Amino acid sequence: MAEKPKKPQKLKARLPRGLEDRDPSAIRATREMVEKIRAVYELYGFEPVETPAMEYTDALGKFLPDQDRPNEGVFSFLDDDEQWISLRYDLTAPLARYVGERYGTDGLVLPYRSYRVGYVFRNEKPGPGRFRQFMQFDADTVGSATPAADAEICMMAADTMEALGVARGQYVVKVNNRKVLDGVMESVGLGGDEQAGHRLTVLRAIDKLDRLGSEGVRELLGAGRKDESGDFTKGAGLDDDQISKILVFALLQEGNVTELEDVTNLSPSARAARGNVMTFSAGDDDKSYFVESNKGVIEGMMTHFGNNETSRAGIEELKLISELVEAAGYNRDRIRIDPSVVRGLEYYTGPVYEVELLLDTKDEKGRPVRFGSVGGGGRYDGLVSRFRGEPVPATGFSIGVSRLQAALTLLGKLDTRPEVGPVVVTVFDRDRVADYQKMVASLRTAGIRAELYLGNPKNMGNQLKYADRRNSPCVIIQGSDEKARGELQIKDLIEGAKAAAAIASNQEWRETRPAQFSCSEADLVSKVREVLARHDVSWG
Amino acid sequence: MAEKPKKPQKLKARLPRGLEDRDPSAIRATREMVEKIRAVYELYGFEPVETPAMEYTDALGKFLPDQDRPNEGVFSFLDDDEQWISLRYDLTAPLARYVGERYGTDGLVLPYRSYRVGYVFRNEKPGPGRFRQFMQFDADTVGSATPAADAEICMMAADTMEALGVARGQYVVKVNNRKVLDGVMESVGLGGDEQAGHRLTVLRAIDKLDRLGSEGVRELLGAGRKDESGDFTKGAGLDDDQISKILVFALLQEGNVTELEDVTNLSPSARAARGNVMTFSAGDDDKSYFVESNKGVIEGMMTHFGNNETSRAGIEELKLISELVEAAGYNRDRIRIDPSVVRGLEYYTGPVYEVELLLDTKDEKGRPVRFGSVGGGGRYDGLVSRFRGEPVPATGFSIGVSRLQAALTLLGKLDTRPEVGPVVVTVFDRDRVADYQKMVASLRTAGIRAELYLGNPKNMGNQLKYADRRNSPCVIIQGSDEKARGELQIKDLIEGAKAAAAIASNQEWRETRPAQFSCSEADLVSKVREVLARHDVSWG
Repeated sequence: MAEKPKKPQKLKARLPRGLEDRDPSAIRATREMVEKIRAVYELYGFEPVETPAMEYTDALGKFLPDQDRPNEGVFSFLDDDEQWISLRYDLTAPLARYVGERYGTDGLVLPYRSYRVGYVFRNEKPGPGRFRQFMQFDADTVGSATPAADAEICMMAADTMEALGVARGQYVVKVNNRKVLDGVMESVGLGGDEQAGHRLTVLRAIDKLDRLGSEGVRELLGAGRKDESGDFTKGAGLDDDQISKILVFALLQEGNVTELEDVTNLSPSARAARGNVMTFSAGDDDKSYFVESNKGVIEGMMTHFGNNETSRAGIEELKLISELVEAAGYNRDRIRIDPSVVRGLEYYTGPVYEVELLLDTKDEKGRPVRFGSVGGGGRYDGLVSRFRGEPVPATGFSIGVSRLQAALTLLGKLDTRPEVGPVVVTVFDRDRVADYQKMVASLRTAGIRAELYLGNPKNMGNQLKYADRRNSPCVIIQGSDEKARGELQIKDLIEGAKAAAAIASNQEWRETRPAQFSCSEADLVSKVREVLARHDVSWG
Repeated sequence: MAEKPKKPQKLKARLPRGLEDRDPSAIRATREMVEKIRAVYELYGFEPVETPAMEYTDALGKFLPDQDRPNEGVFSFLDDDEQWISLRYDLTAPLARYVGERYGTDGLVLPYRSYRVGYVFRNEKPGPGRFRQFMQFDADTVGSATPAADAEICMMAADTMEALGVARGQYVVKVNNRKVLDGVMESVGLGGDEQAGHRLTVLRAIDKLDRLGSEGVRELLGAGRKDESGDFTKGAGLDDDQISKILVFALLQEGNVTELEDVTNLSPSARAARGNVMTFSAGDDDKSYFVESNKGVIEGMMTHFGNNETSRAGIEELKLISELVEAAGYNRDRIRIDPSVVRGLEYYTGPVYEVELLLDTKDEKGRPVRFGSVGGGGRYDGLVSRFRGEPVPATGFSIGVSRLQAALTLLGKLDTRPEVGPVVVTVFDRDRVADYQKMVASLRTAGIRAELYLGNPKNMGNQLKYADRRNSPCVIIQGSDEKARGELQIKDLIEGAKAAAAIASNQEWRETRPAQFSCSEADLVSKVREVLARHDVSWG
């Protein structure tokens, strides 16, 4: 027997891991968010700029928080001229390149306030809620060394959250200063360029304070930590004395307890809402405290770390930021000095800030979710300098749009209802498609979203099912009898659905034929308008 | 002597070739265009969908018009799991993958009308106006085999042009059908799968009719053609008889001349505005003719190519499209049947269409520019089928947003004036930054775009120069004297510029101090509002 001819191999339609397709309601929600953020940034005098999705790899530098992948976390390819090109992994490195190219020319007015929104790409191991392509919305001020620039960005971050519907008290902008952290490092013998990598390990451990508590961080600063799954993370290898000093800083220290309110017995969300809650370990007796004012925190910092020159400079900057935001009416409920904020990136040189959502919610499975950070940034005075060989001060802030959107969706702050679809003109007589097309054209000309049924017209039931699934407000039907009378039928699907819900028997519903009526061809547009008005239908 | 210590090597800030940064007015213009296109597509019942910037390379297929680069025209990288991933080079192949994944599931309502906008990437040799990243805006209907779907997209393309400010008569949507072309190919012995590559060469030659004229195309269909620069392009190698038949088709043939108007002596732009102008070569006596109606062209096609079954099927489809668009009021001035339209892509299987701008304009150097095609598409029934192993009809249309924007900008259809900048609050006393910050906050709270001067405040002249370059409507100044009186100064820069233009002597202008006045601190917002109202300032 002859072999059966092989079927041509079918391609599998699938996306690479860590990438996602987006549906109309997600797209609409992103557009709404982006427009609201844009409006705030423009109010602050920031102007848009856009750079391409790819850059020379050397211009991007290596500042990724996680570099555990062969390709060092970025997608790269070799160009024709043997130069490496990479997809951008954030919007800050491309801005530094943009400014570096124009610095000192007429093409750049300094100080330069700008914003940009776009996708960034990480060649990382994808996980739940962790994508290899996601959207960021950044704002940066280049060419200004004053902490007033940092203060402005913190206020803008707070305003942005409120513009997005996150009420006061449901978010907080936390501020710290890398200089203070650097001084603390110096004071425990971790200063100097050659210890940069070591410091980064320490900073990342501090960054986990929220999640792991002081004991977990203590382990990460020391020999290392085994998590619940049994995975071991190597520690920073510090001795007990070094660890204590660092923890005292991150938690402030007991000397401040006199100005603190004991909130140990409050509920977790009440504590989170209070903000600067710190847990002190004294044997088995952990206690949590609430710091009343930014001033108090800053005074505490100055008392205990002001003897180090680097720290003191950082504390002075935090003091100025705190004064500026308070003068503008932003109190500790919106902008908080918080010594536990680190931000993972190597390139920060001064104030760092982070926006945190304070709301608890539940995921689809009813488990409690804490959102945590939805944006952050800081001062990066060295990033543009790489291109210039002269100091170029800069500070900026990035919102994780994709991440924030997921949070706002869970919180019900975004409208994710399916939109009302178009009016569907059905095809009753397939040789009169031109007539139906003409009806569609007249509806569209009147500004009414409308379409001709383009599937196989032989079954009217399928056409109505299609209209239903498209969420159409109404369908138009014209058989040859109606045509002969110069009439057509309008079937109001919204009314129909209501009637169907109200009437128990499907049989009965069919017989009453609710919400379907005849009108003359000439009245098509006005009658459809009546149906739309009856149900308050309007399109985006 | 000791060697001078080497300076650390400075990174060069530059973009890879073929990529560009975009400024505020370009970004704003794109946003305006995208919103207008979106509104038309939504009116037609198309819904948005978004896919990521990258796909598995095999899912994209190899359908690029030019494949003269080692990387076959796309940017690709090998993933961790040894699979190749590529940046999308258009928005059609990703849509085919998207639909292929969902076809036959509840996640996809058929027929599926959708639109998408985004950047695509071509790893091609960049040239003037030819970028490696550019924006496309696509609309597609999947799951409908009727030419009514193609007709709809042609009408939508016409409406889109008018929504973008291109008046009727300044653009045209040209329509042809690959089946007609295929039948012509068959009739000259170029049928069959094994000649697919050969046919493509022939189609590309026909596609150049506009640019090279019939003689140039004749050379490209034969042995080859040497262009003005001396570069030789290998031809399709057809014999004279084959070439004549193909040219007769592309130009229609002399039998049709009886219905044609001789437009040989009209100006080039008048001829272009007429649309279907065809040049016939009869020795030295080239003549150009204008075809009056779509019906005439279709009848001509039917007379001369209707004996081939494939062609006839295609001509019937064109006839239906022509009837549908005419019924909806779209005449030959908007949608034209034109046998010279080819569209380069291999995957088209039926109607193909192209939007052309008919306007002539001048470039910056005063040279005449013809815009030509700013969008196009066609039916691609095989593209989704690759994933399904069953036929899936589809048709779609793509606007080259970047290219169209360049054209609309040259034509003055887009607002590219620099926007009015923010109100600038200057820093007179550097120890009162908090006071100035407070003024900024009160302006912003009132919805007035405003900013604090964040540069070095020691020189008021620099601050005013900054405000000028930012295109600010006015600046706020408060010295210690004014502060003591509870007052501040508002300097109206728009009025000031007018006054400066009117008054010859700079000295005189300074003395009159135009457009600067005092007001009380409490009146800041209302007085700034007066200045903005006086000059009709409002922000996007």
